[in-house]
Amino acid sequence: MSPVSDLVDVLIIGAGPAGLTAANCFNGTNLRVRVIDRKDGPEKAGRADGLKSISLEILDTFGIGDTILKDSQRCEEIVLWNPDKNGVIKRTMTIADKVEELMKPREVTLDQGRIEAVMGENLQKHGSVKISWNTQPVDVKLDSRLKDDPESYPITVTLQNNATDTIETICAKYVIGSDGARSWLRKHLNIKFTGDLTDSTWGVLNMIPKTNFPDIRKVFVVHSTRGTVMGVPREDKLVRFYISMDGGHRNTSLDAKSVTAENIVTAAQAILHPYTLEAGNIPWWSAYCVGQRVADEFSHQNRIFLAGDAVHTHSPKAGQGMNTSIQDGYNIGWKLRYCLERKCDTALLSTYESERRPIAQALINFDREYLEFFARTDTTHDEFLKAYVAAQKFTTGIGIQYPTSLVVQTMETQAQSHFLATKLAHGMRLPDFQMVNQSDGVPIRAYHRLSSDGRFRILVFPGDIAEGAATDRFSRLGDRLAKGLTRNPGVEIITVHSSRRADVELMDLHPVFRPWDDENGWNYWTVYADDDSYHDGHGHVYERCGIDRNTGCIVLLRPDGYVSLICGLEDTGAIEGFFDRLKVKEVVVDIGKKEVNGDIRGDVLTLGSLIQV
Amino acid sequence: MSPVSDLVDVLIIGAGPAGLTAANCFNGTNLRVRVIDRKDGPEKAGRADGLKSISLEILDTFGIGDTILKDSQRCEEIVLWNPDKNGVIKRTMTIADKVEELMKPREVTLDQGRIEAVMGENLQKHGSVKISWNTQPVDVKLDSRLKDDPESYPITVTLQNNATDTIETICAKYVIGSDGARSWLRKHLNIKFTGDLTDSTWGVLNMIPKTNFPDIRKVFVVHSTRGTVMGVPREDKLVRFYISMDGGHRNTSLDAKSVTAENIVTAAQAILHPYTLEAGNIPWWSAYCVGQRVADEFSHQNRIFLAGDAVHTHSPKAGQGMNTSIQDGYNIGWKLRYCLERKCDTALLSTYESERRPIAQALINFDREYLEFFARTDTTHDEFLKAYVAAQKFTTGIGIQYPTSLVVQTMETQAQSHFLATKLAHGMRLPDFQMVNQSDGVPIRAYHRLSSDGRFRILVFPGDIAEGAATDRFSRLGDRLAKGLTRNPGVEIITVHSSRRADVELMDLHPVFRPWDDENGWNYWTVYADDDSYHDGHGHVYERCGIDRNTGCIVLLRPDGYVSLICGLEDTGAIEGFFDRLKVKEVVVDIGKKEVNGDIRGDVLTLGSLIQV
Repeated sequence: MSPVSDLVDVLIIGAGPAGLTAANCFNGTNLRVRVIDRKDGPEKAGRADGLKSISLEILDTFGIGDTILKDSQRCEEIVLWNPDKNGVIKRTMTIADKVEELMKPREVTLDQGRIEAVMGENLQKHGSVKISWNTQPVDVKLDSRLKDDPESYPITVTLQNNATDTIETICAKYVIGSDGARSWLRKHLNIKFTGDLTDSTWGVLNMIPKTNFPDIRKVFVVHSTRGTVMGVPREDKLVRFYISMDGGHRNTSLDAKSVTAENIVTAAQAILHPYTLEAGNIPWWSAYCVGQRVADEFSHQNRIFLAGDAVHTHSPKAGQGMNTSIQDGYNIGWKLRYCLERKCDTALLSTYESERRPIAQALINFDREYLEFFARTDTTHDEFLKAYVAAQKFTTGIGIQYPTSLVVQTMETQAQSHFLATKLAHGMRLPDFQMVNQSDGVPIRAYHRLSSDGRFRILVFPGDIAEGAATDRFSRLGDRLAKGLTRNPGVEIITVHSSRRADVELMDLHPVFRPWDDENGWNYWTVYADDDSYHDGHGHVYERCGIDRNTGCIVLLRPDGYVSLICGLEDTGAIEGFFDRLKVKEVVVDIGKKEVNGDIRGDVLTLGSLIQV
Repeated sequence: MSPVSDLVDVLIIGAGPAGLTAANCFNGTNLRVRVIDRKDGPEKAGRADGLKSISLEILDTFGIGDTILKDSQRCEEIVLWNPDKNGVIKRTMTIADKVEELMKPREVTLDQGRIEAVMGENLQKHGSVKISWNTQPVDVKLDSRLKDDPESYPITVTLQNNATDTIETICAKYVIGSDGARSWLRKHLNIKFTGDLTDSTWGVLNMIPKTNFPDIRKVFVVHSTRGTVMGVPREDKLVRFYISMDGGHRNTSLDAKSVTAENIVTAAQAILHPYTLEAGNIPWWSAYCVGQRVADEFSHQNRIFLAGDAVHTHSPKAGQGMNTSIQDGYNIGWKLRYCLERKCDTALLSTYESERRPIAQALINFDREYLEFFARTDTTHDEFLKAYVAAQKFTTGIGIQYPTSLVVQTMETQAQSHFLATKLAHGMRLPDFQMVNQSDGVPIRAYHRLSSDGRFRILVFPGDIAEGAATDRFSRLGDRLAKGLTRNPGVEIITVHSSRRADVELMDLHPVFRPWDDENGWNYWTVYADDDSYHDGHGHVYERCGIDRNTGCIVLLRPDGYVSLICGLEDTGAIEGFFDRLKVKEVVVDIGKKEVNGDIRGDVLTLGSLIQV
């Protein structure tokens, strides 16, 4: 074995969506994080392309959502075509691609390589994470004697550089394996990849189509007597086509390896007849037989974690692959950062598998139903709409609820909390509402404000604080939080009141809600109004969260935007208890940032002498 | 003289806002454009910071408006403070910083250097324009014998590189002098800079203030017995302060050169008393006596043009400097490109001075009134609001109307056209309305669509084309346009109909409205609906433009978004007459772009064999 050349807190194997998301969770830290990938750079073309709103919100917390949105194609409509009694295809249904609760587009599409490039550039901009291309692991060893010592580097990894043909040995505290469906790490750890191939062969193709098919810029599903084609509009005039290569009849003898791009185009032409279709540029294509598999384990000894395609594969047609991978990476990313920075109970890390594995299993079931549903030719408008809306609750993430754990409060409390915020729940994600900054009147979306900085947030919804009794109540809460926070530093408090913004003076509020920084003065980005904005309407935050303006509540939000607990304004003890159970052992004193991003302005709550260093 | 080392179509002297805007007008051309600047790179800190909505729209046409908006601070409110009878300052007025017609924020602020950096990066991305830093002109000669030959390079420029201490001689067809208030070129051409200094000395300072002044994140004007301070919130927790250094009493003996940053902070502290103010980081400050001047001439022999601060200076307080410069650069930029590419009548270039010089003169008058207005302490709410709204019609550009010229149709036609589009006018700017793409349902703002590609646009407002007679009328218009366009290539046709989007099939429309490209098929970004969108509301285009849904009209739009003429749907002869007068001599055949930007997708209208090459 060559001498150890590097000690890293986290090694991430695989610079795809899961790995790059996990890596971006470490922006702004002093932790040593390294990403390696066998490839010589980001994907050039092809592979995944669908970004759900939840993924865009995650990218928003990294400060890059807008950059990606700008280049993306929005999907606004879904159309269904079926053969009429003469076998001629006819448009039978047009549906808005819209999930009412989201209040924004459900999905956009963009080439995976462009998304990876922006994520990689963001790492470079922050400078905290290094990507080594042309690099793959050839051996990974975990020293179990060291695994319970939080300061140890128990994992020894041998890396091979394929460009220079050199070997390097590094030691890591933690390893994330996001190395794809054929994961070397999963195989090396002997973790089973349970499931099976479906028996249908599909061709997938990115193409600039020259066609008179009228719905080419919408999401379309065309059932014909000659098979099925599904299309998704993409950036730069591209369209992603999915085409059944066995003419709609399951043909187990068809080998995906024998399929050519010409075969796929010919099949599409036959299905779309009598409309014409001529192939323009085809930057990428593939043929596959869908494998639906989930790994038996997502982690090994709470030191090595698998994420993304390494632990789940399924059909690409629901556009869930990249999104589930991004959510995997986001989930393990903040937890590792929190354990490393806050020295909390490493039991937190067990929640990665307990939260993400059920999602992967649900995704396989969803995928199976989705494939069958799209294969049907007899769906009525109402059936389709109902099934579609139900599906989107899952794909958009708004229907996902993580189980009770160290970081999701128990159900007992939840029964009570449900009364305080009838449209939120423990273990569910905060909706992306718009709120208006108290100090300058600028409206902002929640996930533009909730930057990925590894902190829990205490979201205070105090109701109408302009009114006498509520003003006092809010002030008393400030006293209690200031006192309690000496035990829970690194927590940010954000207030969203329901008063008219004009009736509140920021400087009259308890200082804990607008913390002071010796270098930069008061923080103006911690108090917001649920009020009308001058140019962008009203966010209706209290209504969307089901919070009563007289009762109010506190929402403890995890660094990934999921709700840990909901409690009453008087019940700050619940929050203190939460952090006690998490056993945050060491205080990391955040210092006010000098360079504050235009969107985030994440000045950090510091209570000066109150913090025990 | 050293041998000529370079031949350029356009030399731009000065890489400030005016020069960089002019340079960005040439993105995507094969013309040879070079920018030089004495500085060693973009401004590091300070100078201008206010971007009006019109400037952001111009940046949108370059594809960089969103990038700049993301980093900027929005200004949403203006507050006035005055001394009470005891001399204690009190907030006397809060006004929404809102111009109803704009339907978006009127102003954002961002450091000039960051704006210049994004504009420079955009030139680099397109690769058509080169910036040479550390480079200044030491001699410019115009050979008048060659000036009427469009193919000649009549201007010989001697350049000095201050880093390498070398001399270079280049020849240019045209020169733009955007080299600032002390313009070397203006002095070299002996052009008078008429006007005078005002007699008030002001300090200006960018600072992170540590203060309990409650309106520090709004635009504020504080009149006190100890002087006046005006503040504008900025990105990154900065505030721009303007402070009268002579205590509000005009003091001609005060020398701006003697003012220090400490003086300015002390003056601000005195004015804001009893509120506390402590200086955090001060990245930039300056002191000045306002000079209000306009150059007697904006151009020389229609070969050399002056723009920006080189031809107008005034108070920075109305935030007009950078905006007027950007508009100057945008105006001369497209005209030079059009003359060089289309070989049209160079009389077009005379309209630069006839359009921009009156604006500069109006700006000086506006500035004078604005300064006096803000100096008053007795303004009532209604007076302020009235004056403010009137001022914003000017500063936002929506009240500006260019006079009749080769590219703005005469008033006679206008009287008629005013009936067709009651809220538009010849010589005025198109409002930035939202429209919905017919093919995919995605809403887009006009100036995101109207990329700066040097083309005139025929905007067709055909009304409700789903209804029988109107369908035929629209189709006949298509026939006429297809025929007429053989004489006017390089014109893009964009349709905004008022039918329900669901009632129109793109493929049923005349091909001239959705042009074909042999490589990429049909164009899906030329037909839009004035209809509700799924996620972003309704643009109400016809209502905002005052267009009758039964009558409809055609708007001929200049490459810079100003209306050349408005005519009836049957009156395409008016458009042909317009281009005949412009004498476009040579046809430049646009080819469909391969790489289509996510926002713009500016596939070019090509009618194949119909075009006379």
